[in-house]
Amino acid sequence: MDLQGSFHVYDTTLRDGAQQEGLNLSVADKLSIARQLDELGVGYIEGGWPGANPKDTEFFRRAQDELDLKHARLAAFGATRRAGVRAADDPLVAALRDSGAGVVTLVAKSHERHVELALRTTLEENLAMVRDTVEHLRAEGQQVFLDAEHFFDGYRLNRDYALEVLRTAYDAGASVVALCDTNGGMLPTWVADVVHDVVETTGVRVGIHCHNDTGCAVANTLAAVAAGATHVQGTVNGYGERTGNADLLAVVANLEVKLGRQVLPTGRLGDATRIAHAVAEVTNVPPASRQPYVGTSAFAHKAGLHASAIKVDPDLYQHMDPADVGNDMRLLVSDMAGRASIELKGRELGYDLSGDRDLVARVTGRVKEMEARGFTFEAADASFELLLAEEVEGARPSYFDVESWRVITETRPGDEAVSEATVKLRADGVRYVVTGEGNGPVNALDFALREAIGQAYPEVAKFELIDYKVRILDQGHGTDAITRVLIETTDGQSSWVTVGVGHNVIEASWGALVDGLTFGLRKHHRA
Amino acid sequence: MDLQGSFHVYDTTLRDGAQQEGLNLSVADKLSIARQLDELGVGYIEGGWPGANPKDTEFFRRAQDELDLKHARLAAFGATRRAGVRAADDPLVAALRDSGAGVVTLVAKSHERHVELALRTTLEENLAMVRDTVEHLRAEGQQVFLDAEHFFDGYRLNRDYALEVLRTAYDAGASVVALCDTNGGMLPTWVADVVHDVVETTGVRVGIHCHNDTGCAVANTLAAVAAGATHVQGTVNGYGERTGNADLLAVVANLEVKLGRQVLPTGRLGDATRIAHAVAEVTNVPPASRQPYVGTSAFAHKAGLHASAIKVDPDLYQHMDPADVGNDMRLLVSDMAGRASIELKGRELGYDLSGDRDLVARVTGRVKEMEARGFTFEAADASFELLLAEEVEGARPSYFDVESWRVITETRPGDEAVSEATVKLRADGVRYVVTGEGNGPVNALDFALREAIGQAYPEVAKFELIDYKVRILDQGHGTDAITRVLIETTDGQSSWVTVGVGHNVIEASWGALVDGLTFGLRKHHRA
Repeated sequence: MDLQGSFHVYDTTLRDGAQQEGLNLSVADKLSIARQLDELGVGYIEGGWPGANPKDTEFFRRAQDELDLKHARLAAFGATRRAGVRAADDPLVAALRDSGAGVVTLVAKSHERHVELALRTTLEENLAMVRDTVEHLRAEGQQVFLDAEHFFDGYRLNRDYALEVLRTAYDAGASVVALCDTNGGMLPTWVADVVHDVVETTGVRVGIHCHNDTGCAVANTLAAVAAGATHVQGTVNGYGERTGNADLLAVVANLEVKLGRQVLPTGRLGDATRIAHAVAEVTNVPPASRQPYVGTSAFAHKAGLHASAIKVDPDLYQHMDPADVGNDMRLLVSDMAGRASIELKGRELGYDLSGDRDLVARVTGRVKEMEARGFTFEAADASFELLLAEEVEGARPSYFDVESWRVITETRPGDEAVSEATVKLRADGVRYVVTGEGNGPVNALDFALREAIGQAYPEVAKFELIDYKVRILDQGHGTDAITRVLIETTDGQSSWVTVGVGHNVIEASWGALVDGLTFGLRKHHRA
Repeated sequence: MDLQGSFHVYDTTLRDGAQQEGLNLSVADKLSIARQLDELGVGYIEGGWPGANPKDTEFFRRAQDELDLKHARLAAFGATRRAGVRAADDPLVAALRDSGAGVVTLVAKSHERHVELALRTTLEENLAMVRDTVEHLRAEGQQVFLDAEHFFDGYRLNRDYALEVLRTAYDAGASVVALCDTNGGMLPTWVADVVHDVVETTGVRVGIHCHNDTGCAVANTLAAVAAGATHVQGTVNGYGERTGNADLLAVVANLEVKLGRQVLPTGRLGDATRIAHAVAEVTNVPPASRQPYVGTSAFAHKAGLHASAIKVDPDLYQHMDPADVGNDMRLLVSDMAGRASIELKGRELGYDLSGDRDLVARVTGRVKEMEARGFTFEAADASFELLLAEEVEGARPSYFDVESWRVITETRPGDEAVSEATVKLRADGVRYVVTGEGNGPVNALDFALREAIGQAYPEVAKFELIDYKVRILDQGHGTDAITRVLIETTDGQSSWVTVGVGHNVIEASWGALVDGLTFGLRKHHRA
């Protein structure tokens, strides 16, 4: 089944999603999200606007070496040529051509007032800009999609011109024209009518790009598909400017589960929940528990009244099997959920737990208890494996005993703050007292800890802390809240993530640091 | 215009909304929310289930004395009589009758499998339960609405029976039958078809009650209205079990603004944003910034590209006038911003910069330079305003001079970490040396700083740090990276966000803390 041909699932998390207030993605973040999207099986990943800002240019450069996409194709976003220049002479068009992306998605004006006010050119020149740019990029061997900006509003104002823009792009060789509800004010029946008219009148291949300003982005997208669109744009977790874009996972789940239309490779929808949460870890935007399909509350039931009926026939109380999107039914007072996934996770890590129901129950119970305290194991496999090893082997893997630690951060006006940490611990029978400095308290602690352990275990010299993420849970309590820290450590060959939690950000970081070194030492001692 | 008669806006925040995971409302909370809902002008407020739990019973008791509703009518929610007893003899029905509510909303089964499995009775007895209970309450002088639970699923399984339940209730005197998508699996076209059939076939007055499991609760509600429903149920902020109920404010805004159908008293929609936020304060669920119509980001614009066009004609870039729902257009100052957006932003904060091109260029330059270092002003209006004041007034507003600060965090095995901060500063000519403790380093610093300044400026006693966010920038460098901290401070009346940046997380936090207090002091000294 040629999903890239017959129906496009087009993700714009890295471009339009990144327009969300407060969301700021580094190049490494973008590469990491692109890998998740490829695992999900989307057809197209819009990576950004090369040439418009250095970060996006670098993303496309690094993507050529570092992204090994199995399924998705990378799309570069950019504008049609400027008025009055040849497409071949426009440096921004050149940046698209040279991006290395097989697909270019060109944004074009289709609303006459926007042409006049924002582009400050004539309606005729705008058509020429569309035609020239599409033809130029096609001639250079790229596939071209057109994003018709403000299309629905433009169609209302001047239907003929809006349609003319689409026809021009299509005739010049664009494969798809995506109708954009840029300001987000549409309702489903309106979208359906316009898409139907466009398909009937022009015969172009239609895509749809919706924003959620009326709370109808998902429904608007579905309405467009019902009216003939075969290309849907959206973002993971509905990220995007203002109220966000259409939530791509909800759109896809509705198409596959509710409407029986396969749009992802077989079986991939079952990763939706994991991927939604993994992307949220990268963006550091707390996932919405009430998010359709993938939220932690999406299949949660207050037990009691319904519990016995749920046991007899769960389908009476849920609209679908949550496993189809990788989620779980959760009874808020029961601990029945999650055992199967613990077993699966254990198998993934090389532990066959299927024969030991007590063990699975114990691990499930500890995970639930720790998650209630703020831990998360979704993104912290190494901490989960240490927990599992502790339950399987009877004791937590341990290579050193910490006696105490202390860290001081101080400053004087005009100077940068400095941090100094002292760690006291015993390793391999010897007591070490080591002081380290750093440009932050965790940096100083990491340095002192590594120095101390390194005398007994020289292999830690290879370990390096490569990522550090902090999230404040239980917001609304200011600096008094619970803090969760995720740390990624590498030994140069592979990397692993550990988690720490505490009221004190330093203490949470310490827990994750100790887990990170312990996991690495265990890995080397077992190898 | 008799809005209570011709079209019902029926709020169930206090009953179905309160089913949300983690949401827990006291009787005082419920009374407070009911007052907000009355101000909004909803027709009906479902207060809870009297008789089923003591809290709801008390709410209805206190509501009779303490709630002086100007517009809304109070509805009591409850079930039809149990199988095999007379309605007049059922204590739960009596609790509804005696609740003091003018309206009773009876939940009834309309799905044959639910009748058999959950009620464990016959289809005939279920009809009798509906008939008897409605007749009994009508005879006692109450208006009765019927909530047909699992209606859409039941209709699919056995259309005739589902319709029979509705007819029975209507013939017995119910004013409205609300069709409930209890499991939330419907899509708009399906809802439209079923509602249309119900209206055509039975002639009953139809209401609609949707959940957001497919991300379509708002669209489903609108589809039902288009098909003939004249009673919409929903909750403020879309609170509710699993993925939540239909967001009542989005439904109402769509009906009034988009579809030109007045459903609230004239002018009340303009309070929607304020009320959504006020209710969020009571529920203590942080408001979603991306919430349609009322979210803080709902009318925020980031792209500098658009700012010049926004100045010419804001309607080209927004789907409606935000004032119609009591919200505001907001321009985000970001590194994509150009001079036009700085000028607009200044105007928003009360500074007319249009006459001073040099000043605008200076501010734009500083913003870009600071953003390159990791600052962000998108979410930190207060830090931006301090920067603007510095450039306009020639010096940064300052109320105290810091000499030095130091914070120590330490632990011993088995103990929680503790932090102790010492701050030395001069305020109003006096030198202060203050030490404070906290369960984290920033908490300790905040405490010591506030103590020290509070001796010169007692008004800081009112300030409270209500949110603290940490973001590691430049990821891939571990604990050596740049850290950005956002802090939200309140004085009990309004709140403001400041930003700090540094290699050292403590130093970044310190910068944001100092800005937060400085902004608050400036606000009070100018007032």
